[in-house]
Formats: sequence, C-alpha cells, structure tokens
Amino acid sequence: MESPKLKALLPVLYLVWSDDLLTQNELGTLRDFIHAQQWLTVAEQQQLLANVDIAAPPSRQQLARWKKEIQKSMVANPEATGIFDLSLWLSDGDEGISALRPVFAKLENDLGILGDEIIMNFRTEASTVTSQYRTVSSFDVKKLTTVLDGPQSPIIRRVKQLLSRPEFAYETSTDTNTYRHKVYEWCQILAKENLGNMGYPRAYGGGENMADYFAIMETLSYHDLSLVIKFGVQFGLWGMSVQSLGTEKHHQKYLRAIGSLELPGCFAMTETNHGSNVKGIETTATYDHARQSFLIHTPHAEARKEYIGNAAMHGQMATVFAKLLIKEKDYGVNAFIVPLRDSSGRILPGVTINDCGRKMGLNGVDNGTLVFNQVIIPKENMLDRFASVNDAGEFESPIPSDNRRFFTMLGTLVGGRIGIPRSALSAAKSGLAIAIRYGDQRRQFGPEGGAEVAILNYRMHQRRLMPLLATSYAIHFALQYLTHRYFAKTENDMQEIEALAAGMKCYSTWSTRNVLQECREACGGKGYLSENRIDALKNDTEIYTTFEGDNTVLMQLVAKNRLAEFRKAFGQMNAVGKISYVYENARTAVAEKNPIITRKTDDAHLLDAQFHLQAFEHREKTTLASAARRLKKLIDSGLDSYDAFNVTQHQMVDLAKTWLDRIILEQFQIAVAKTEDHNVRVALTRLNQLFALSVIEHNKGRYLEDGYMEAVKTKAIRKMVNQLCWDIRKDAVPLVDAFDIPDSCLAAPIAF
Amino acid sequence: MESPKLKALLPVLYLVWSDDLLTQNELGTLRDFIHAQQWLTVAEQQQLLANVDIAAPPSRQQLARWKKEIQKSMVANPEATGIFDLSLWLSDGDEGISALRPVFAKLENDLGILGDEIIMNFRTEASTVTSQYRTVSSFDVKKLTTVLDGPQSPIIRRVKQLLSRPEFAYETSTDTNTYRHKVYEWCQILAKENLGNMGYPRAYGGGENMADYFAIMETLSYHDLSLVIKFGVQFGLWGMSVQSLGTEKHHQKYLRAIGSLELPGCFAMTETNHGSNVKGIETTATYDHARQSFLIHTPHAEARKEYIGNAAMHGQMATVFAKLLIKEKDYGVNAFIVPLRDSSGRILPGVTINDCGRKMGLNGVDNGTLVFNQVIIPKENMLDRFASVNDAGEFESPIPSDNRRFFTMLGTLVGGRIGIPRSALSAAKSGLAIAIRYGDQRRQFGPEGGAEVAILNYRMHQRRLMPLLATSYAIHFALQYLTHRYFAKTENDMQEIEALAAGMKCYSTWSTRNVLQECREACGGKGYLSENRIDALKNDTEIYTTFEGDNTVLMQLVAKNRLAEFRKAFGQMNAVGKISYVYENARTAVAEKNPIITRKTDDAHLLDAQFHLQAFEHREKTTLASAARRLKKLIDSGLDSYDAFNVTQHQMVDLAKTWLDRIILEQFQIAVAKTEDHNVRVALTRLNQLFALSVIEHNKGRYLEDGYMEAVKTKAIRKMVNQLCWDIRKDAVPLVDAFDIPDSCLAAPIAF
Repeated sequence: MESPKLKALLPVLYLVWSDDLLTQNELGTLRDFIHAQQWLTVAEQQQLLANVDIAAPPSRQQLARWKKEIQKSMVANPEATGIFDLSLWLSDGDEGISALRPVFAKLENDLGILGDEIIMNFRTEASTVTSQYRTVSSFDVKKLTTVLDGPQSPIIRRVKQLLSRPEFAYETSTDTNTYRHKVYEWCQILAKENLGNMGYPRAYGGGENMADYFAIMETLSYHDLSLVIKFGVQFGLWGMSVQSLGTEKHHQKYLRAIGSLELPGCFAMTETNHGSNVKGIETTATYDHARQSFLIHTPHAEARKEYIGNAAMHGQMATVFAKLLIKEKDYGVNAFIVPLRDSSGRILPGVTINDCGRKMGLNGVDNGTLVFNQVIIPKENMLDRFASVNDAGEFESPIPSDNRRFFTMLGTLVGGRIGIPRSALSAAKSGLAIAIRYGDQRRQFGPEGGAEVAILNYRMHQRRLMPLLATSYAIHFALQYLTHRYFAKTENDMQEIEALAAGMKCYSTWSTRNVLQECREACGGKGYLSENRIDALKNDTEIYTTFEGDNTVLMQLVAKNRLAEFRKAFGQMNAVGKISYVYENARTAVAEKNPIITRKTDDAHLLDAQFHLQAFEHREKTTLASAARRLKKLIDSGLDSYDAFNVTQHQMVDLAKTWLDRIILEQFQIAVAKTEDHNVRVALTRLNQLFALSVIEHNKGRYLEDGYMEAVKTKAIRKMVNQLCWDIRKDAVPLVDAFDIPDSCLAAPIAF
Repeated sequence: MESPKLKALLPVLYLVWSDDLLTQNELGTLRDFIHAQQWLTVAEQQQLLANVDIAAPPSRQQLARWKKEIQKSMVANPEATGIFDLSLWLSDGDEGISALRPVFAKLENDLGILGDEIIMNFRTEASTVTSQYRTVSSFDVKKLTTVLDGPQSPIIRRVKQLLSRPEFAYETSTDTNTYRHKVYEWCQILAKENLGNMGYPRAYGGGENMADYFAIMETLSYHDLSLVIKFGVQFGLWGMSVQSLGTEKHHQKYLRAIGSLELPGCFAMTETNHGSNVKGIETTATYDHARQSFLIHTPHAEARKEYIGNAAMHGQMATVFAKLLIKEKDYGVNAFIVPLRDSSGRILPGVTINDCGRKMGLNGVDNGTLVFNQVIIPKENMLDRFASVNDAGEFESPIPSDNRRFFTMLGTLVGGRIGIPRSALSAAKSGLAIAIRYGDQRRQFGPEGGAEVAILNYRMHQRRLMPLLATSYAIHFALQYLTHRYFAKTENDMQEIEALAAGMKCYSTWSTRNVLQECREACGGKGYLSENRIDALKNDTEIYTTFEGDNTVLMQLVAKNRLAEFRKAFGQMNAVGKISYVYENARTAVAEKNPIITRKTDDAHLLDAQFHLQAFEHREKTTLASAARRLKKLIDSGLDSYDAFNVTQHQMVDLAKTWLDRIILEQFQIAVAKTEDHNVRVALTRLNQLFALSVIEHNKGRYLEDGYMEAVKTKAIRKMVNQLCWDIRKDAVPLVDAFDIPDSCLAAPIAF
C-alpha cells in the first residue's frame, strides 16, 4: 500500500476493519467495489483485495499505521469536510482520483458509514465544547437560600442544627423493631425541644406557631422520613384532631401530654374496606344514655382500622372515627377518643391490635390494625366541636347535614395536606442534590483522545434532571403560597384553599415520585445502593401519593371544585355581561390565535413570562369549558350523572392539572419578580422559563389541536427547552446547594 | 314552608345546606336573591329568610324532610332535566313561577351549583351502568396460555411445578444473610434439576437448549427475583462467558462444575469508574512470559470491580475483564479466569472482597467489590477464543482492531439482553395480575343508595391499567420474535439483532418500571404492604433499567445502528433509484396526508391494523430522516462530531423508540393474525388496537406537527382509547389469568 493511488482507500479500509458498527458483510461490498474500479490495474486491485480478506486480516500494527496516516491527513487538511478530502490528500492529489468523488460517496453510502461523522472522530479534539463545560455559579448561594427559607429561616436553621447532632445518625439496621425504637427516641428528643407542640396553644405549652410547625415538618424531611411521619402522626394527626375536633375540656386534658409525647396516640380513620370513601366507614359508636357512654365496635373484619400509624407499638389512645348511633339511628361519622393501651403499654380489654408488618418503606413507623369489640368509653370522649349528644341524650349539631358536617370536620384537618406536599418536596430536593452533584463529578465516555466527560454535560442527562429541578423550585414557591393562603383563610375562600391543598398534595407528591425515579436511574448502580439514600427516599415517599387522600380521588374533587367555580364565574353576570364575557374570551382567543402569534418563535417571545401565563391560562380555560360542556351533554343525553362523571374522569384529572399548573407558574413568576438580588433573580428566571416551557412542551398536542400554536412554534419550544437545560446545567450544583441540606442528612457518599 | 309557592325553593335550600362544595358565602347570595323576588310577599320572604340564617340552621330532621319531598318530585318527573322542573312540580305548577325559569337559572349559576348534575344525584339509580359492569370472560383462558407459552410449554410447566413446591416458599426475613443463603439453596435445587446448565453443550452435562434456558429465566421470574439474578449470574454470565469467550480446554475444565453449581463464579466486568464505558476499564493483566502467567492488578481504588454478583459470599472464580499488557504495550480488553476463593470459601491471597451492602432490592444476591493486588494466574486462564498470547509470547487475534474485538466479545454475550427483558416482563405480568384482580374485587364509592362499585369499573382506573396490559402483551410477542431472531442469527444480521436486543431490553425494563409504579398506586395502601409483593417486584426490577447496559446509553447505540442502516438503504440505489426512493416516500406521505385521511375518524378506520402500522412507520421514517439531517447540518456547520452527537442525544432516544414501537406493533399484529381460536383472536385484537392507539395518542403532538393527523382525528383517537379500555376491562381478569402464574408465586393476599 505504498502507492499513493491506493492510499486513497485507506480511510475506508481502516473503518471496515475497526468500526464496531460495520459487519463482515461490508467486506463483500468493498471487494465488489474494488473489482469494479476501472482506474485500478488488476495488480492494484489484487493488492487491495489482499487487505479485504476475512481469512487474512491486517495485523494490529498495520491498522495502527493506517490510523496514523489518516490522522496525518487530518492535520494537513483542517478544512476537510469528508472522507474523500482525505483520500485525495493521501493519494497526493492524484488527478484521476479527484474525479471520483461521486464514486467514493456511493461507496460510503453502500457501507452505511455514518458519512463524515465517523471519520471526523479522528479530528475530535480532546477538548470539545461538551468536555469543557462545567459548573460556574452565577449567583451567591446563601442569598438564594435566604429567598427560599423566608421568614422561617430561624426555625429551619435550628432544626438543621439539631439534626446534625450525632444522636441523629441514620439507623442502618434492617431489623424493624430496632428501627422503630430509634425513630421513637428521635421523636422524644424533638418533643423535648418543644418542636412537636409548636402548633398548639401557648396555654398548653405549645408554640402557637403553625408556620414554624410546617417548616419543622419540611426540614425534618431532609432526614429519615419515618421520623417525619411518626412525628406527623403524633403531633399532627393525633394532636391536631384533638385540638380541631375537640373542645376546651379535651385540650385541657390531653394537649400538654400529647405535645410532650407522654401520651402517644393515633388517628384512626381509614378502614380496610374504606380508604378513599371514608364517609362509608362502618365502625360504630353506639350511645348508651343510661351509662353515659359510647360502645365502640368493629362490626366485621373488613371494618377494622387499617394502616394506623403509632398503633402497632406505641399508641396509648386514638382518635377513632365511627358512625354515631343513638337509639338505632345513624347520625353520620363522628370522632371519639378511645384508649388503646395503658401507660405501661399493655393493650386494653376489647382492643385487638395487629401489626401491618413489613412495608415498602417507612418501616420505622409502627402501622397497625385496630379491632374494637364493644369497647366502652365515657361520654366526654366524644370530640364535640361540631356535634354532641346533649343531656337529654339527643344529637345536637350546628351543621344539620351529616355530609356537610363530616366534610367540615375533614376541612379542619387540611393542615396535613400542607405538611405532606412540603415533606415530599424536601425528599425531592435531597434526591436532586444527590443526583446533580454526582452527575457533576461522575465521568463517562469522552471525545477520542480526551478525558472522560462529566455526565451532567450530556444533553440527555440534562433533559432528565433540569426540568425536574425547575419544577421543584416552582413547587417550592407554590407551597409557600398555599401556606400563606391557609393562614389568611376566611370562611369564604376555605373551599378554594381546601381544593388548592388537595391539588398541591397531588402535584407535589407525584412530582417527587418522578424526581426520585429519575434520580435513581441517573445515578445508575450507585443509585441502587442503600448507602446513597435514594432507596429510602423513594420507598418512603412512595405512599405519599396514596395517604392523606389518594391522588387520583383528590384530583376528582379538585376538578369538581373548579367546575363549581366555573358556574359561579358565569353566573355573576347578567345576560349582557355573560355575552360580553364570552365575547371577551373569544376575542382573546382570536388575538392569541393570530397567525403571527401562533407562529412566533423569536427567543424574546418564547422566554416571555406573559406568553407563558397566557398559554397556561388558555389551556386551563379551554379544558375547563370543554369538561363542563361534555358533562352537560352526557347528562342531557340521558346518562345517569354517576355514569357521566365516570365517563369524564380522565378529563377531570386533566382539568385539575391545568389549574394547578397555572397557579404554580403564576406564583413562581411573582416570587421571581420579588427577588431583589439581581444574580439570584436571573438564575430563578431561567428556572421559571424552563418550568413554563417544559409544561407547554409536554402539552403541545393540546396546543396544536386548538390551533393555539403551529408546528413551527412547538418545535422552537423544544429547542428552547434544550437550550435552557444546557444553560441551567452550569448553575445546577449551586441551585441544589441552595437547598442547604445538612451534610449529615444528605449523607450519600456519591454526593460529596 | 307549607306554601307550594315557597316549595319551589326547596331544592336550592337543600343544596345550600347539605352540599359540601358550597360555602357559607352562598347563603348570602341566596338571601339577596330572596330579597329581590317581587313575586314573593314580604311575609313570604321572611319565612324563606328564616331558613337561610347561619345562626339558626334547619334541623337535621327538617333537612331529611326536604330531601324526601325532592325525591318525591323526582319520581313524579322522570323526564325532568334540571332543578327548575322540580321546583315547578313542588310548587304545584304555580303559574307565576313557571315564568321564572331564567331567574332560577341565574340563581343556580350564582350559587355555582353544578347545575343539573348535583340535583340529578337524587335520581341516581342504585344500579347504574358503572355499577353493573363486571368481568365476563369472552374466551378460553387455557387457549390463550397455550398461545403465549408456545413450544416452550413443557419446560414452563415443569418450572412452575417446581416453584410450587414448599421449599420455594418466599423468604420473609429482613436479614440479608438469611435471605442470601435461602437464594443459594434454591439455586442448588435448580442446578440439581439440570435447569442451570440447560444452555450448555450436552458433552458437559448440559441440555444444549437455549430456548428452554430463556423460558426458565422467564418462568423463574414469577418467583423471587434475587433467585433469578443469582441464577443468571452463575449459569448465564459466569458460565456463558466461559463458554463463549473460552475454548475447548476451558469448557472441559469448568462447564460441568459450573452447571452443577459446584463451582460458583462471577462475571467481573464493571468497575467503579467504568460502568457504561466498559471499554475504559483499568484493571490490568500483565503477561509474564518467563513464568507463563498473567498478573491481575487493580491499579487504583476506583478501578475495583463493582456490583459483582456472587462475589460477596459464594463466588470461587470470576471471569475478569482486564487490559492485556505485553511488554508494556496495551492490547485492549480481554477476559481471564481468576480464582477468588478456595473450595472452603476462604478468600485467596491478593484478592480483597467487600460487600456492596444493602441495596434497594435484590438483597438475596451477594454483590461485592473485587480488588486484585498482583494476583498471579496461569497463562491458560486467558479466555482465548478471540485473542491469545502465542508460544513466542506475542499477541494473536483474528480481529486486528482492539475496539472491534471487544465488541465482538460483548456480542457473544447478547443472550443476557434477551434474558433480562423477558424476566422484566414476567415481573410486570405479576404486578398486573395483582392490581387487576384486586381492582376487580375492591369496591369504593358508588351511586347514591347503591352498593359500592368495583374500582376497575372507574374509567380512570381502566386508563391507568388497560394500556399497560396491552403493552405487556405487545412486548411478550416482540420478545418471542427477538428470541427467534437470535436463534436464527447469521453473521449478516448480527448487528441488527444486537441492536434489537439492546432496544428490547430498554423497552421492556422501562415498561416494567411504569407498570409496577402504576400497579402500586392502583392498589393504594395495600400495594404498599410487602405481603402484596409489589414492593419486591418493584424494587428488585428497579435496577433492570441500569444493569446489562444503562438504558439511556443503549438507546444511543440503537439509534446509531438505525442511522447506519438508513445510510445503507439510501446507498444501495443509484442516482435514479435514490430519487425515486425519495419520491416514493413523498408520495406515501402525500397520500397519507390527504385531508380525507388526516381527518378520517370512523371506527373502522381508527381500529384498522394497516392505519396503525402506517402511522407507526411514518413516525419512524420521519424521526430517522430528521435526526440524520440534523446531525449532518450540525457537523457541516463546524461542530465537533462528539458535540454534534451530544446535541442530538434526545432525538436519538426518540429515534430508537420509534423503531422499537414499529417492530413491536408489527410482531403483535403477526401474532394476532396467526392465532387460530376465534375468541382468543378477538380478545388479542382489542389489546393490539389499544396498544397501537395508545402509542399514537402519546405521540399525537408529533402527528399534528407533521400534519399527518388533524385535531379532529387525534381527539377521536383519545375517545377510542377510552372505549377500548372500557371494553377490555371485561376481559381484564381472564387476560391476566392467562399468564398462568402459580398461586404460590403470585402469593399476594389481595390477588385472591
């Protein structure tokens, strides 16, 4: 192969023998090609064919020599754009060959060589754009932490310091009992620090500060989640049920002991047969006027209380939800305090407790089942804020409807639907901190001859993690908003706040599920080792989408609330007003459907906050209107309303999502606008844009169906999402550092 | 409220007091309304207002009386379509009132009452369409099982019988050692039954039947997945590496003992720093010609072998992948047999083994890390099928390129990429069997006055599970196809089969991840209890998306294979041919983009197999062409090829998916067509249609962007998906029964 003419074939020969994408089949193609070349003498053909013989492959050394020559040709031809340019140079610019460009092009095609790309690998610089990219913090991390923590900064810092103490080292035993004991010990420390009773009235030793209580739940969630749930069961569910459903006498008697954990207790609502449809629970509380007491009873096995936290080991009492029966008449579901164990832990007569056993996660929480066999409790144990039995033995309530009373009772417990999504978000933040820090350090593959590249520089890895990071920030601000709304609640917006809490509970817990799944996969095998904590984070939060209300069921409720609001919005106008409202709507739609807008793809427009919000609002309005219309049509056509709601269930979930998306975007935009520090604001703006465009991209089918966007625009949005992922990647590590998760909590070796 | 005139307001009054969606705010609205009604006397207004006083709510009894009257009005007016019709009847058809329809309509709106829907609840029949719906098997389950099992029926039955024996009762201890011992015992039983060596040559005691071997892996996967992986590591990875990479002398020496489990071993490829990029592993095998041996060495801590199954407890030898060095020259990655422990289990000098510790799942498998400190092995321990050191101490190989040789070696191990997706599918089938059987029994909510309804009757529940059931059937047939292709492989289609195996590994394991996630949520709290097995199924298969090649990395490889094939397809035509190919393409596209087709929405068309396949092919072709074009453009614009591939990573994954989707659909259609039994074929056809339309629906954005479908069609497809879910729900239980999973394996109490 010393003849320059023959050297023209070196690049192809090298590729055929070395590339792992080519099959032996290609040797045949190459042989045929050589035979067909009239510009080669028979001798030259033979010489070449000797190099295409499967039985006599070139030696390893020969291959190396070829490669060297090709590389030389690359250096000499920095402008070469394809294999043929190299062939030409290797053949010393042989004139006969220069005419053969199309012939060589066909050969490359026949071989299925990835044209210029593969040979261009030779020119790959050790330092490509991809390899040079790295973390460069564009803002002051501490300032962002301050923005995130807001007024709760002091309590958050206090809890973090506490969690960093050696007593809070993670329990690694797989033994359930050991784990449960450890979690109980941790709860005792927190109680001693007056963190458990933070939400209770000062009169009973509490801090009377629910804002701090929520911040405590959220911060504890950077640590073991069994602890959070055990803590939430004791001080939230059990304590708050006494506080919210009971009256002065109950507060007096129990709140102090609950807050100090001297009186561990349970919240016993769910039954085996009734989880989502709690209105249908079957446990009975039969009033006995003569003895001034109630008989608490489980009528059959499937009516046992199930999954009750704190029941299997520690609970001494429980708030038990049961149907109140007075003289065989059913007065709906009410709540009663029922003792389960004496103070030494012995189970009381008539009470049967079974352990729920091993669970996917949260094994530090002692969930159990409760069966009551005609257990007698004194009359004063009825939690009687919303209903009571008077001295005459008659039922009394300010709320006449059993249905409405029950939902009013549930409404007072809505705090749980704020604590849970905030806890879920903390778990997602931990997962992101682990996966993003690991992705910034872990190197795999790289350009030919160069060092391996941080996997976070790969576009696919960014696509997997950056939108989730943006969503987590978005949810953070939305949960702050929900919390503010909750504290400022009035009778009039209570419905909306309950819907918002239910919706945000779903949104946040589903997002955490997605985040942790992606984080596990993004960390590969390391993500599977328990020491790196994605195991616990993922399995512990797995049930968050189910407890405190199954997400799919809650989303239906949110949707019904939206439908009701929709009717009101229409109703509050007179005939003229109604028309102009519809017209207004149509006008906006027309303006937004203007061909200039539907096809607008300049960067400024795609990144514009107003464009984002309008697009979200459009989706919200149209989804709502279309669901309402469909429901009406189905019922008008004679379908039973129960069946009609069933037919539209899928749309209902959509509808609830569009509402939540819009609120979350809105709150994110407001939070960004309020941020004072310029650099922090710029970083948050990018996240805000990525959140908005990811949601739009995810729903592009909808926008195209509506004619709200044309293909040219949805394609431009996809590119912009990629670009934002690339831009945010630089800030990704500082963005998770800003969560300020204590090292001892994060703990995963791969995150350091 | 005895005056008929006033009774017109009963329905509204009742709703305001009882519905939990209305707020106290509405009492104000209602009061204002009453004040404004000229047709009421002041006295009448007062009477009504007395019923809208928050301080004096109606009594519970009064509410019950109102409800009774309203119900009476419903019975008398079966044709009533709204609240006002009832008002009219209640007022004895008062003439003054009959003119008030618009006034009442406005009131309803102002109150945000869900118009007719809520009041219509009164009429909800105890037995609605939704409540009456139930499982009705439309086919013979056994016949479908026969279709699924095919020629491997006998071995599948044999393995199922074996697994049903009491020795195979699940291990419930949370202690890792206990669990690992149990799994090892199970492996010994399987070895004794000659199941482990099923794929080895008869000459070494094997069954020489790889088809049966894959069926064994698949069937074992209905049981504990740690067992499957331990079994796969021993007989598949360890044994097959000796068989495929070694030569006669190795087979002679080891295969029999491996097959009988007398010689437990490992497959040591992955290193801490090199998981996906295994070509970059750093362990060295330095040849010592004087001593006729190799020195196996771990150059630094991060080059230790990681996650090695069988290493922490049982492995006595390992196939170790290391860079071969001869006289300081690097000859690329080769494989060597390295002893780890003596037959009594003592770790040999120079070898350090650490336990990987607790993992998310598969805790019955003893994964460990291996560090070698200048471990000497005899020369004959090099697995020398593809490369060897000759008597002169020189490197020899029929494959000159180190790169190509390494990928050829990996290619011989492609069996793992058939075993894993088949194992994953079995886990998905178990999850579906549990969730669907539970959904058929579990009742929650129901029409007013009627029994609660099986949750599988809810549309949302169907939407969650039915498409996944259809996808699982689709994957089943595609994996059968992959297995057939693998057995019929020739040199020429090896590349394609490797790509297909890699792709199906991703497709199936990602699908299993999605299936088990949905099953967990669909089973609510019960799905969280370990006894119901979704815990183990989910956590054990969690790593399937990572091991045997990280899915995201594999999908890039699949995409590159498709791009190469694309070039070949273009190349194999002359200039004229190329033009007509492009024209042909365009013509098809034009025909398919015909407005009549893009808007065609009749059922026959939407359910037509040819329409499905064309739509899949369109997506495949256009995605591939556009990715190729983009790549070319980026490189032409001067981007480094490494960077260009990075920019298009996301598109690459898409491209690979479209190819897999099309193949899977095609194979499903072929399998359906071949099914002889009419009823079975009808049931499979529905699943096939649901799979096709779900994929199209999921990608509707793409079809709309291309103008391949218009909105009217994508919307019709959404409805058809809903309809198919509804139809298939009837067959859902028989469809999972046909998987014929032994009761002792399924085991979940909620599934029985």
